[in-house]
Amino acid sequence: MRITIIGSGNVATHMAAAFKNAGHRIVQVYSRDIQHASLLAYHVGAEAIDSLVQINPETDIFVISVKDDAIGGLTKALARYEKTIVHTSGATRLDVLLTYTDKAGVFYPLQTFSKTKELDFRTVPLCIEGADKLIEKQLTELAQTVSNNVYKVDSNQRRVLHLAAVFACNFPNYLYSAAQHLLAASGMQFEMLRPLILETAEKVQTNLPEQVQTGPAVRNDEDTMQAHIHMLENEPELKQIYRLLSQEIIKNNNAEPRHG
Amino acid sequence: MRITIIGSGNVATHMAAAFKNAGHRIVQVYSRDIQHASLLAYHVGAEAIDSLVQINPETDIFVISVKDDAIGGLTKALARYEKTIVHTSGATRLDVLLTYTDKAGVFYPLQTFSKTKELDFRTVPLCIEGADKLIEKQLTELAQTVSNNVYKVDSNQRRVLHLAAVFACNFPNYLYSAAQHLLAASGMQFEMLRPLILETAEKVQTNLPEQVQTGPAVRNDEDTMQAHIHMLENEPELKQIYRLLSQEIIKNNNAEPRHG
Repeated sequence: MRITIIGSGNVATHMAAAFKNAGHRIVQVYSRDIQHASLLAYHVGAEAIDSLVQINPETDIFVISVKDDAIGGLTKALARYEKTIVHTSGATRLDVLLTYTDKAGVFYPLQTFSKTKELDFRTVPLCIEGADKLIEKQLTELAQTVSNNVYKVDSNQRRVLHLAAVFACNFPNYLYSAAQHLLAASGMQFEMLRPLILETAEKVQTNLPEQVQTGPAVRNDEDTMQAHIHMLENEPELKQIYRLLSQEIIKNNNAEPRHG
Repeated sequence: MRITIIGSGNVATHMAAAFKNAGHRIVQVYSRDIQHASLLAYHVGAEAIDSLVQINPETDIFVISVKDDAIGGLTKALARYEKTIVHTSGATRLDVLLTYTDKAGVFYPLQTFSKTKELDFRTVPLCIEGADKLIEKQLTELAQTVSNNVYKVDSNQRRVLHLAAVFACNFPNYLYSAAQHLLAASGMQFEMLRPLILETAEKVQTNLPEQVQTGPAVRNDEDTMQAHIHMLENEPELKQIYRLLSQEIIKNNNAEPRHG
């Protein structure tokens, strides 16, 4: 397939590379910053452009991977070519494209991408939505060439996925940094926690999280929780987080209080 | 070394197997439940006992891996043999053993163990404390036979580690289950989130969490955060968690508000 990439951020970069590796042809890479466009275009053997008047209409699909608030304007500009246009955003409804074109779809990768870390794109869940059955079929076929995990997800489900990803990714990462600061204050290094963090994520690859919940809250071990809260006297925000999350774990588990 | 295991839970099970694999001799496994003792003893070629009068004094070290509130009583009973006694608890001070014996130490594995999941013990951080230099040396040598990550950690540091582990393991696992429930309410499966969860943990294996924080809060993307909070109208606890953790991420990042 001939693919034009609009954007040059983390998602655009990983996705363009995955398309290229799967044998597709990346026609052009557009970015407002020509240096960003050139860097990505060079890697995937495409032409770099920084102006929409340079768009080559000889393509099959425009993949818009930019900040959410720029998706509408770019769609409006690209609709004239009458090719399939998709965005890659978890938080943006398909309707935003449908205002300008019928040949609209979504190609949302449910993963956290960084420019510095390689990752196997075949494991990335790709969430597909199409304006009609034909677009849906085209996108599903394209998705299957780059990933083993292709899902049909509508706009309502996708915004739930995007919210769930905050709980499953962004918030755990914040808690890792909170743990790091607790260690640093006692002269210890973050590296001590790395195996624990990895094992916690690996456990839920084959189990549901509720089945493998551990710690003082799920045991309703009030003595340990009191001791922990006491240690957080000078960290009021962490104390509040500790109380709130422990309460929810206790509530979910319906355990009776236990004293040591 | 000749090692006697007191306890038959997850930690006792993984540790006994690691000792055995490293060439040590497990003399006995004690549990109040003879069936539990027998199961573990069978796996590590040891004798199973369910009464302390059956203790074989021909051993070098007693490893007490039981509930925190049972450590003191067992130490009192074992002190008469004048062998090294260690506990494996993150939340228990060395003092609890020192009440009964001078030959006391701690052998705390900073990892989450489950009976159903194998794990490479050589990656497990082992946190060592000894009542004196001689015990410390004995425990460090023993630890290095089973793990590549051996740390000297005093009782004050260890309770901080234990608290930090709640933030790095127990709370993230709870957030995974919160994400699972959000998905389930919209007819989606937890498996969609598994690659994201694993990648989030893998990213901090080579970076510090602050360096790889992503999501609406670190961008101070108020429109997305407002939309997410609105979606949580019927989940007051998750809404509170969302607000609290997002505030902390914003505060840590010192970002200016951005509107879409």
